[in-house]
Amino acid sequence: MTRLGLALALLPCLAAPASAQEPADFRPASSNVWDAQYPRVDSKGRVEVRLKAPEAMKVRLNFWSGPKIDMVKQPDGVWSAITEPLAPGLHYYMLIVDGVEMADTGSRSFFGGSKYASAVEVPEPGATYYTIQEVPHGQVREVWYLSKVTGTWRHALVYTQPGYDETKERYPVLYLQHGGGEDETGWVRQGHANVILDNAIADKRAKPMLVVMAYGYARRAGQQPPDLAGKGFGSPEFRKAMQDMTAAFESDVTEALIPFIDKTFRTIADRNHRAMAGLSMGGMQTFHITLNHLDLFSHIGGFSGAAGAFTLGRDLDPKTDYNAVLADPAAFAKKVPVLWLGVGTAEPERMRAGIQKLHASRTDAGIAHVYQESPGTDHEWQTWRRNLNDFAPRLFR
Amino acid sequence: MTRLGLALALLPCLAAPASAQEPADFRPASSNVWDAQYPRVDSKGRVEVRLKAPEAMKVRLNFWSGPKIDMVKQPDGVWSAITEPLAPGLHYYMLIVDGVEMADTGSRSFFGGSKYASAVEVPEPGATYYTIQEVPHGQVREVWYLSKVTGTWRHALVYTQPGYDETKERYPVLYLQHGGGEDETGWVRQGHANVILDNAIADKRAKPMLVVMAYGYARRAGQQPPDLAGKGFGSPEFRKAMQDMTAAFESDVTEALIPFIDKTFRTIADRNHRAMAGLSMGGMQTFHITLNHLDLFSHIGGFSGAAGAFTLGRDLDPKTDYNAVLADPAAFAKKVPVLWLGVGTAEPERMRAGIQKLHASRTDAGIAHVYQESPGTDHEWQTWRRNLNDFAPRLFR
Repeated sequence: MTRLGLALALLPCLAAPASAQEPADFRPASSNVWDAQYPRVDSKGRVEVRLKAPEAMKVRLNFWSGPKIDMVKQPDGVWSAITEPLAPGLHYYMLIVDGVEMADTGSRSFFGGSKYASAVEVPEPGATYYTIQEVPHGQVREVWYLSKVTGTWRHALVYTQPGYDETKERYPVLYLQHGGGEDETGWVRQGHANVILDNAIADKRAKPMLVVMAYGYARRAGQQPPDLAGKGFGSPEFRKAMQDMTAAFESDVTEALIPFIDKTFRTIADRNHRAMAGLSMGGMQTFHITLNHLDLFSHIGGFSGAAGAFTLGRDLDPKTDYNAVLADPAAFAKKVPVLWLGVGTAEPERMRAGIQKLHASRTDAGIAHVYQESPGTDHEWQTWRRNLNDFAPRLFR
Repeated sequence: MTRLGLALALLPCLAAPASAQEPADFRPASSNVWDAQYPRVDSKGRVEVRLKAPEAMKVRLNFWSGPKIDMVKQPDGVWSAITEPLAPGLHYYMLIVDGVEMADTGSRSFFGGSKYASAVEVPEPGATYYTIQEVPHGQVREVWYLSKVTGTWRHALVYTQPGYDETKERYPVLYLQHGGGEDETGWVRQGHANVILDNAIADKRAKPMLVVMAYGYARRAGQQPPDLAGKGFGSPEFRKAMQDMTAAFESDVTEALIPFIDKTFRTIADRNHRAMAGLSMGGMQTFHITLNHLDLFSHIGGFSGAAGAFTLGRDLDPKTDYNAVLADPAAFAKKVPVLWLGVGTAEPERMRAGIQKLHASRTDAGIAHVYQESPGTDHEWQTWRRNLNDFAPRLFR
């Protein structure tokens, strides 16, 4: 390559992400706090983040399921970065300032990764199903119930569909669980589950229903927190802690939450009118709880939630696990009219492999189910918004 | 002083906050995220904060209405600080790492100071009125209303008292506003307003009522955000922006919010059964809105909210301001059975002076009102929890 050729080849790099040929049309993200100008997003899905930190030595932008970028300090002490185009959806991120992970104060905070994290909403052109429309809106009700299982007051959110207060009818219920490191607010704040239901009900795609979003972490009264210091994600100690928690949550749901919901709301309190779904860890919990309690649930959804889904790691033995409810496909199909599995095509291979294995084993066993891949989305909320939007309309038919 | 005397006098400083004679009994704060060990609080109200930041050069702990402490780096890269005993209540704080203000990921985040901030709850011994008890609980309902005033969907929280769904009765309504830099979630998340009402209603101290908590920031449809860069808090530009926003919010409340609430909930939709109160900026808004609309409101509460309260800065002229409703004390008392003013004794002098001036002028004018000082508390949520706990039981008698 000639010197001139080399210089020309380097030019696009020097021109920075927003070149003269591609005028940037950055706007503050809809996920920002009131009047915050950054982060902002352009029509290509590129995200620009800024942080004023004149004294900092190093600032890094860390999208959990996306780019990790060393930000560049400008002469005015403002560090900045522009990402490549991101997939549509809500992307968690944090800033790492001199080695310390922090939320961006320009962003609203969303509970994820066991902390209040930043996130930026990249719009999906043409997608209106999860944005607020001029249709009747349900309410999202905060409720508190005293759980004898955990010995604590527990906080849950309950979506009541538009018009709930104006009728005397009873309605079916979907129990909908968040992922690991998230909490009961995730499906509304990050997922817009209430808006998805409002729109699907307004379109008459989905039946009117209540949606209960509970906190998926639980510990039996008197039980000590596990000491997992230095224990890895797949270690026996971690797995034991996960099993204890899943079992405590199973008891909480079946012994405390469901009775409370059926007492407090006008539900149709039988298995045919009760569904459960969850994402990631919530998917695992959903499989565990529903298959152990087919007397209580009839519709099941697992969104990106197959890692050790049925058996917390071990391979499933349909002949013995879960009272062998999976052993007889015809009987299972009769009991479970909807078994729904989904995953994003951009999810890490270990996530996809788990769900695909589950899908293949259900297919081999002749167990009717829905399997859907969300195009281009990762282990993130856009996958689960799409999942819910497909799953909810199939319920209670 | 002898050398020995000097050395002895210095000893307590060297002994650090937790001396051998005073065993510390630190426990994780109730305001922490699940299982976070720090921040923690001892029975004296001292707060211990830690941050792992081996690469940081300087870390400062900044309680907005409390101590500002340079944290000390331990050999393991963890910075730590222990405060002097703090007054009971919820104290906002942030960490400043190499000049960058950040939330502490061990704390839940609360919207305050126009960002998601950390806060630590210091218990008040013996005070149970704002902590959850084994009594019937109301719900807190998230609702969305389309405001023609702002041209946007607006989000509000509505407390419905225990048993609301089981009766057909209609109830009075308290409109309750957050402070500057906060949002509609403040009175529940930080203030525990729902718990205060649950407990007061269970004791039969307060009448059953609905409480509407709206977002106090508003801008008329099409109006551009004011450019306040470089403009001070008391500048004409700032004052103009505040007046515009207060006027937009006044229209939103009276033209959009109240009609929506009266249509959606079983309210008694008349002035005698409608109250309004607010803290700080919300107190100012309350005075402005209620005095301009005595046809809509009958009970008024201002919590630490007198700075320029009645007239946005200018001295009040009772003969001309607010259609002269304050000019005739007897007529006013007949129209407004409860005018409630309060402030914390530890608030900054400028906050106290404003409220005291208001109190004195009301007294001089012979206008019946309640004036209360909250002992030992600052311009913070413990003051306003106490205020609400005294104010709510006086309503709708």
